[in-house]
Amino acid sequence: MSDLETINASIAQANEHLRTLQAQKADAALLTEAKKKLGELKKHLAAASGAAGGPRADAGKKAATHRMALKTPKGTRDWSPAEMSLREHIFSTLTRVFKQHGGCTIDTPVFELREILAGKYGEDSKLIYDLQDQGGEICSLRYDLTVPFARFLAMNGSTYPSIKRYHIAKVYRRDQPAMTKGRMREFYQCDFDIAGQFDPMVPDAEVISVLCEALTALEIGEFTVKINHRKILDGIFEVCGVPTDKVRSISSAVDKLDKLPWADVKKEMTEEKGLAEEVADRIGEYVKLKGGVELIAKLRETPLSKNASAKAGMDDMELLFTYLKVFGVDQKMSLDMSLARGLDYYTGVIYEAVCEASAPPGFSPNPAVAGSGDPASNPPPPKPAKKAAPKPGEEEEIDESQIGVGSIAAGGRYDELVGMFAGAASGAGKKEKGIPCVGVSVGVERVFSILLAKMKEQEKAARSKETDVYVMSLGDGMLVERMSVVKKLWDAGIKTEFMYKAKPKPRAQFEYCDKEQIPYAVILGPDEWKEGLVRVKPQVGKDEAAGEGEKVELDKLAAWLKERM
Amino acid sequence: MSDLETINASIAQANEHLRTLQAQKADAALLTEAKKKLGELKKHLAAASGAAGGPRADAGKKAATHRMALKTPKGTRDWSPAEMSLREHIFSTLTRVFKQHGGCTIDTPVFELREILAGKYGEDSKLIYDLQDQGGEICSLRYDLTVPFARFLAMNGSTYPSIKRYHIAKVYRRDQPAMTKGRMREFYQCDFDIAGQFDPMVPDAEVISVLCEALTALEIGEFTVKINHRKILDGIFEVCGVPTDKVRSISSAVDKLDKLPWADVKKEMTEEKGLAEEVADRIGEYVKLKGGVELIAKLRETPLSKNASAKAGMDDMELLFTYLKVFGVDQKMSLDMSLARGLDYYTGVIYEAVCEASAPPGFSPNPAVAGSGDPASNPPPPKPAKKAAPKPGEEEEIDESQIGVGSIAAGGRYDELVGMFAGAASGAGKKEKGIPCVGVSVGVERVFSILLAKMKEQEKAARSKETDVYVMSLGDGMLVERMSVVKKLWDAGIKTEFMYKAKPKPRAQFEYCDKEQIPYAVILGPDEWKEGLVRVKPQVGKDEAAGEGEKVELDKLAAWLKERM
Repeated sequence: MSDLETINASIAQANEHLRTLQAQKADAALLTEAKKKLGELKKHLAAASGAAGGPRADAGKKAATHRMALKTPKGTRDWSPAEMSLREHIFSTLTRVFKQHGGCTIDTPVFELREILAGKYGEDSKLIYDLQDQGGEICSLRYDLTVPFARFLAMNGSTYPSIKRYHIAKVYRRDQPAMTKGRMREFYQCDFDIAGQFDPMVPDAEVISVLCEALTALEIGEFTVKINHRKILDGIFEVCGVPTDKVRSISSAVDKLDKLPWADVKKEMTEEKGLAEEVADRIGEYVKLKGGVELIAKLRETPLSKNASAKAGMDDMELLFTYLKVFGVDQKMSLDMSLARGLDYYTGVIYEAVCEASAPPGFSPNPAVAGSGDPASNPPPPKPAKKAAPKPGEEEEIDESQIGVGSIAAGGRYDELVGMFAGAASGAGKKEKGIPCVGVSVGVERVFSILLAKMKEQEKAARSKETDVYVMSLGDGMLVERMSVVKKLWDAGIKTEFMYKAKPKPRAQFEYCDKEQIPYAVILGPDEWKEGLVRVKPQVGKDEAAGEGEKVELDKLAAWLKERM
Repeated sequence: MSDLETINASIAQANEHLRTLQAQKADAALLTEAKKKLGELKKHLAAASGAAGGPRADAGKKAATHRMALKTPKGTRDWSPAEMSLREHIFSTLTRVFKQHGGCTIDTPVFELREILAGKYGEDSKLIYDLQDQGGEICSLRYDLTVPFARFLAMNGSTYPSIKRYHIAKVYRRDQPAMTKGRMREFYQCDFDIAGQFDPMVPDAEVISVLCEALTALEIGEFTVKINHRKILDGIFEVCGVPTDKVRSISSAVDKLDKLPWADVKKEMTEEKGLAEEVADRIGEYVKLKGGVELIAKLRETPLSKNASAKAGMDDMELLFTYLKVFGVDQKMSLDMSLARGLDYYTGVIYEAVCEASAPPGFSPNPAVAGSGDPASNPPPPKPAKKAAPKPGEEEEIDESQIGVGSIAAGGRYDELVGMFAGAASGAGKKEKGIPCVGVSVGVERVFSILLAKMKEQEKAARSKETDVYVMSLGDGMLVERMSVVKKLWDAGIKTEFMYKAKPKPRAQFEYCDKEQIPYAVILGPDEWKEGLVRVKPQVGKDEAAGEGEKVELDKLAAWLKERM
């Protein structure tokens, strides 16, 4: 291993250590020390890089003194027990909401045949992880959960002509990582979709209701749901005179209005994409419109009212708002004509939730300017985006403090994706009548970042385990006696631990109890034991002298504890 | 797509359909029909294979009439909602047991740097899935959860000098699949390990106790834990005169005694592995010994008593049984001198649980002859093992009815794996003092197969969702009214669904209720609605006429239902 690689490995370890300390809300002094160490290592790296003429200059020496890099692959990470508690809290909250709405869950493999994923993600297809051809089928890691779901429906449509399914699972993208903001190469998606042929806007209203209930249950703070309709957008482009072949590229320019001023977007439309200036200006008049459902009435007074596509979209939107009002979430909505959403496959209503905590620093929580992007995945890269091909062992130089986590949930209606698979499988190569779908994806990694920051602010430390009782002894070890008490409590379903030492020190036992925030200590002493008694102390701290605790008969211990827990 | 590929794709779909029917406990007639269809397709395949001169003879035609294969990659599968309910039941049962013992959980990436996995799995390393080199680090999918855990400890040993962690996650092996028996290329492992420097056999006793509690909680039926100690085995080989360089290969021959008669194992030792016949005979005397802890006293009367390694192992074992007795699980143990376990990294006590349901047909539930193997992973392949390299689109020909699911849980002590990583990372290339570990892996896919078979036997169908209430209307659609009732129930935390139709048919609503086994139907009628009333019918069947249900005031509906649920 070269010096550079050694330093890089040390930096990776120091980073991991710092992250662990942060997750554990360690002392400020420890954090400062860890940060200092990291700074020094980075200086070393800069100096060594210069001296060695680049990271690979001494690759030749490698074989002789090889050291294994103890790290996880770039853009991936381990999750500590405390972090896992928070993640599980998020997953169980979402699962509760999904089940409340009759959701069931399915699972699909982590890799798919490569041709299933091909042609679904536009230019982001380059971010797909491929498996090596080891003789057999050609596969890739899944990029999202929507395409595998559509593939599942295309295969099993006769068994599941309609289904409400949620799926919480990892997906993979070879993107530029920004780890502390939750932008990673391996990350969770959390999807809820309703598939089936139903009456207009009824399932759409329920999905949006699920989205609002989920964000409320997660307690991430105030949020707004920006909402639009692909058919209204198509109508706007048609009425303004956008040539058919330019609709998709102009649509993606419009989608940038949450991050760029109109002047820049107009420039992209006219200079880069060759749109006539007066057409761009007409679009500008429409896409700057925002507001409540009353906006639709205003739109009906414009030339849009004569466009068939826009009219269908507006009818949908008014019906949707009727239902959203019944579900009590209409006030969370902000109709936003600039919302276009990146993915090609949307065909109806589209939406995106933003919250104060998800905006980058300096951005206003006003939804019109908050950070955006695809929340189901990764926060957007900082501008200008650094998209250089990553090199092994190279450290990131992204200033993560400048990235907001972006929108926090998003989705829409996609009526043709399942039919595309059915068509491709039949060999006709055209779309077949598939199963219409509408869904939402909650950006759980972003939620994680927000909740972690909130916990730090409130100086809360997550418990990494749920142990209720710690069984200890003072004086003599009493190992077998402790084991027998522990066994009694296990049998009663009480989460119990003890120290795996024959004669553990009292201080070590109290310290464990304290560190793991275990609510009850059961203490064995030789004299009390002879009388069939143990002592119970609630919320034991480091101060061993504080209180003697309560004497409880061994036979009544489990019941005594259960009554109080 | 060629004809062969078309047939193969159809076979895959027919297989999937059959599996779905089986999972749903569909009518016998449907199952027979599905099986017949599958049989016909297979005949077609055989005929077409002959005609086409092999699966790839017409690859040239492919581009012109390409059809996408709608399937999951070989050895992987989708999991239906009903299957997911059972899987979640297994996971939550195991998690409860692990947490009862103070377990916390961590997560590691699904792929690791390839060199982390290299050299850990002996000749099974060929089964590792590699990621394609797309510029950057060289990675592979994880093969188990133990090596990533050891890597995590080697990286974070100062933060976690001791830890009790569980990890439930997918692992990947390019093995020959036998899907209905739970032997797949993507499958779950479920590990519980205790790491740290403690007094002898105390954590070991707790891990074995966790194993027994887990299997009891899963209700898989009677089980036995075969147990042995690497140091006793090493002592046996030494005393019998096995040359040091042959110890590992002789050990793996001994491990086959649960599947082969002694004569065959002896032949392997002498003819294949060049062991002297008298040495093999001496080994035979030892490894046929089985029994309770009293066996140790007998061993102390043999030459083993003078061997340092064997003596250390026997001392351990007697101490372990003292603790297992306190934990009330000593009677589940069967000391078995032929248990050797395949993995190289074990250094102390080793164990393997077998149950009646895990044996292949025709095998006795006696632990001495029950099916074995690595339960954390995949049932063993049938004999003779078919290990030909898989070809794309080729159907499996394994007769799955001839495979038992094998042992149901296993583990042991591995004190040097973490130190190996620390040594490799320091560049010294030798073992460093690491963190001693002991753990167990529950074979969840095998548990799944056993519980699924049990459910079928008992004619139970798993619910695929947990919905409590279905809100429906008779006569007029009353969509908005239904939505308002649903909203009230959601707000009260009641899992509620309704039909996404403006005017749904009564029959369709009752059928849904019945199919999903929803316990309560709330029925809206125009007249009652005007009086602020709804009707509630418990456990609605297809018979619409049966009973009018109870009239309940709308304002009291949520409370009324909660009281009864």
